[in-house]
Amino acid sequence: MNKTLIDAFAEATKSVLMMMAGTEVEMDGMMDGRQKVYGDISGVIGLTGSMSGSIALTLPVELAKRLVANMLAMDASELQEEDVQDGVGEIINMIAGDAKGRCNDSFKISLPSVITGKRHTVSTSKEGDGVIIAFKEKVPFYLQISLEEK
Amino acid sequence: MNKTLIDAFAEATKSVLMMMAGTEVEMDGMMDGRQKVYGDISGVIGLTGSMSGSIALTLPVELAKRLVANMLAMDASELQEEDVQDGVGEIINMIAGDAKGRCNDSFKISLPSVITGKRHTVSTSKEGDGVIIAFKEKVPFYLQISLEEK
Repeated sequence: MNKTLIDAFAEATKSVLMMMAGTEVEMDGMMDGRQKVYGDISGVIGLTGSMSGSIALTLPVELAKRLVANMLAMDASELQEEDVQDGVGEIINMIAGDAKGRCNDSFKISLPSVITGKRHTVSTSKEGDGVIIAFKEKVPFYLQISLEEK
Repeated sequence: MNKTLIDAFAEATKSVLMMMAGTEVEMDGMMDGRQKVYGDISGVIGLTGSMSGSIALTLPVELAKRLVANMLAMDASELQEEDVQDGVGEIINMIAGDAKGRCNDSFKISLPSVITGKRHTVSTSKEGDGVIIAFKEKVPFYLQISLEEK
């Protein structure tokens, strides 16, 4: 995957988390898309168009709660499980939308899905060119990207 | 969601599992899309176009292994975890493609993502009109659909 594309998704992630949740995050490396990374809650969204693919944001639950609490200006302890799921769906939707703008609208985005389950892993399609961007905040989290140029 | 659409996805699921895995499955009811259903492996795919959304096939691991073993004409005990993930990605991809044909190509499909993790749940977007189709084989499994007509 070319660097411009990876940068677009990395910058979109940093920008959305800062803007929506006031949370500064840093890139902490990259991995091949076939590596396994684990988390407790993931937001997944499909991409179609001249680039087809999917992206998945995989978070530890403590970070997901913190981000959503910041977004909603609530205390993390007040959040229902559904608030966290909806918030993570909103975050991945905004990351995809922001990256779309940075990529000259070269893809369309689907509705998001959110997966909840302790220590699950998301595998993106082997047909796409895959990369995993590792980020760090207090805890590590990941954005997986799988893209196939058509 | 209108019955024609639900039928298209239900028939696509039955047809793909019969054709690819020689496995006959029956519909066993429907639930509201906000209900929670659990499984060990899910295939998720995004839809964009005049209908935007996502679909998720959520399976118990024993059924996933049986389906993929049938697809590959292998014994379930010989399968690697990656074979099962790739097989479930292929199944959801074919279900989406088959349903697309039944819906007059009114949407495009993204690349699939596959989630692995004991007893996880997939929530589709609350912006879409959601429904869960329950199927039964020896064990129950689910196709979740969330669609927003544009």
